Amino acid sequence: MQMSSSRKVVELFYDVVSPYSWLGFEVLCRYRNVWNIELRLRPSLLGGVMKESGNRPPAMVPNKAVYMQSDLNRLAKYFSVPVCFPENPFEVMFEKGSLNAMRFLTAVSEKEISGDVMLERVSREIWKRIWSNDQDITLPESLSEAGLKAGLSASEVEELLQLYKSQPVKDRLKHTTEEAVKHMAFGFPLTVCHVDGKAEAFFGSDRFELLAHCIGEKWLGPQPDEQTAKI
Amino acid sequence: MQMSSSRKVVELFYDVVSPYSWLGFEVLCRYRNVWNIELRLRPSLLGGVMKESGNRPPAMVPNKAVYMQSDLNRLAKYFSVPVCFPENPFEVMFEKGSLNAMRFLTAVSEKEISGDVMLERVSREIWKRIWSNDQDITLPESLSEAGLKAGLSASEVEELLQLYKSQPVKDRLKHTTEEAVKHMAFGFPLTVCHVDGKAEAFFGSDRFELLAHCIGEKWLGPQPDEQTAKI
Repeated sequence: MQMSSSRKVVELFYDVVSPYSWLGFEVLCRYRNVWNIELRLRPSLLGGVMKESGNRPPAMVPNKAVYMQSDLNRLAKYFSVPVCFPENPFEVMFEKGSLNAMRFLTAVSEKEISGDVMLERVSREIWKRIWSNDQDITLPESLSEAGLKAGLSASEVEELLQLYKSQPVKDRLKHTTEEAVKHMAFGFPLTVCHVDGKAEAFFGSDRFELLAHCIGEKWLGPQPDEQTAKI
Repeated sequence: MQMSSSRKVVELFYDVVSPYSWLGFEVLCRYRNVWNIELRLRPSLLGGVMKESGNRPPAMVPNKAVYMQSDLNRLAKYFSVPVCFPENPFEVMFEKGSLNAMRFLTAVSEKEISGDVMLERVSREIWKRIWSNDQDITLPESLSEAGLKAGLSASEVEELLQLYKSQPVKDRLKHTTEEAVKHMAFGFPLTVCHVDGKAEAFFGSDRFELLAHCIGEKWLGPQPDEQTAKI
């Protein structure tokens, strides 16, 4: 990996189907300037990671599913991220999934529209659909809506809707997912900090304090700021 | 449950086979006075919880096992708890297990020697054996050694070694484990905070900040103090 600046590079591997990824995403976006890190957003496929690692979704264990809902509600409130469970979480997570959405985000990433800014915005809009408003994220018109809301032009959306079905985009998503697996991912989010030539991987959205310690910074709590108002 | 004081009651369900439980145990022992909580130690059986909840050990997923080791090493250092992986963690965790140790701790709890003080000390000595010094915790002589090191008299140890095989102690361990399952446990540690007549359950050793928030207190980091020197 090319280190383009002297700032510490922090990669976030995520999938919009994962609500814990949304928490990690918002917190790292907030801390980007506080910690002066170069945050690299890496849209990946959770399904691929689960398959490769032989893991199974936590919600398959009934007590975990119950706990996860209460845990997420508490965390969402604490971190000021408007996570709201869809009416049929199993259908949303396991039947409909996120393949198209993650291909769409990969296409956004490929195009590098306004650097990573558009990738961040479109990711957030898709999360708001699935994990806040219980809206579809599988159909082209859903992705189009999210893209327009994020500030893409109609022609950019049109182009992305062609691009996201292309082989290079499919390959790139697969490749990013494989990279996560190389960092021993078994779920998302996976945050990889590059410190002194070493990669330190953190799973989940509950190691921020340790992550800060690892990059020589301080954890200062949820830090909801003007970023939050934008969600 | 009878609330015997006006302090907030926090229960910790744990098993010495679980290294994450050790972290949770030490942190809560340190914060007992900082937060002015009534900490109730609840020795339970992880194996029973896994079976009841249909969960399987995280280490069964190879990437999780690798991650767990690096995660625990980082956390142990950060929290100043001398966790050190045994040479054969699978044998220690899944073959030898903790049934005798948890029955012994249940007997200590039953006897209420010096309130909960002895339960805390003996738990710590057993954790040091299994998760710091790679020593046995299944044989009576191992439990005896831990008990003596914790400050029990030889006659107290003798009595406990009779008591821990008795039906009432077996039943009590089973009952405590069932209580944990009622709180939707699928693993340990499980911390249950009783606030305004409501029980809030937190799984793992990575929700201290949220837990503090839940009981109206502040999380101040690892807080290694004179307690730590004693480990």
